[in-house]
Amino acid sequence: MGGEAAAAAAQGRRILVAVDEGDESVQALRWCLGTFAAAARGDTVILLYVRPAPPTYSVLDASGYLFSEEVTAAIDRYSREVADAVVEKAQKLCTLYGKEEGEGDHEMKVEVKVAVGDARTVICQMADKLRADLLVMGSHGYGFFKRALLGSVSDYCLKNASCPVLIVKS
Amino acid sequence: MGGEAAAAAAQGRRILVAVDEGDESVQALRWCLGTFAAAARGDTVILLYVRPAPPTYSVLDASGYLFSEEVTAAIDRYSREVADAVVEKAQKLCTLYGKEEGEGDHEMKVEVKVAVGDARTVICQMADKLRADLLVMGSHGYGFFKRALLGSVSDYCLKNASCPVLIVKS
Repeated sequence: MGGEAAAAAAQGRRILVAVDEGDESVQALRWCLGTFAAAARGDTVILLYVRPAPPTYSVLDASGYLFSEEVTAAIDRYSREVADAVVEKAQKLCTLYGKEEGEGDHEMKVEVKVAVGDARTVICQMADKLRADLLVMGSHGYGFFKRALLGSVSDYCLKNASCPVLIVKS
Repeated sequence: MGGEAAAAAAQGRRILVAVDEGDESVQALRWCLGTFAAAARGDTVILLYVRPAPPTYSVLDASGYLFSEEVTAAIDRYSREVADAVVEKAQKLCTLYGKEEGEGDHEMKVEVKVAVGDARTVICQMADKLRADLLVMGSHGYGFFKRALLGSVSDYCLKNASCPVLIVKS
């Protein structure tokens, strides 16, 4: 692991930050930008927002009313809007910290990923696929439609992500 | 938080690494040294080992045999030896990484703390008292006398530590 870690340090680290609409994920991103990520070191911050899959199943729902196609389309549209807003806010924060750091010659590399599915599994898959050196997230969340009811996303990622996980609480 | 984080970055970060006799805590320390801590940035790595309180209560145990004073003294002695061995190993790792990094002018500041008590509460208290910017630990542990049976130390610290917590799995 020593060699790997040294190689990662030389190339810059790939830091995956799971963002959602909650304050804690903003805190997590702030912490990451202020304390961990270093543009001068060649680090890349990858912002990941996972939005829930559109409830297509419900078109076939017996009631046929609450989950009409119109409603599912509206939910999907709203979910896209939320995704855009969260990602935009996160990107602004990255730009802001880049300026504060005053590292004029080194701009922080920021990538944005918006995925669809169950936040817990998608985050772990993406950490693997994107070869993240670190996964940063809030302890609660993932906000949309109170996904917390499905079980804590951070608990799941702590157990299942292939990289170290950093949890920031507000 | 931006200001605080910037101040922390300027002064160097205080990174508390909870070490125990398990492999995972060694991995956690390696990760911290290889990927996070930077001597050039003025970071301080604080190695914390918590050994269990000597079982004094058992001197009064009805059986009076299994937990004689002699036995409790032996357990305590063993626990001190384990603490010494763990801390020595961790310190060697810090020295090794310092050399590998080749940062001749900047030696990593390393502090060692050995505390006695319940690992879960002591780690959280120390994170607070030592004004740690980050707590790093393995996901399992704390090894001695299978303290895991008392509940996961990392789970407790994730919920109760006042600073962000980084969990490294082997």
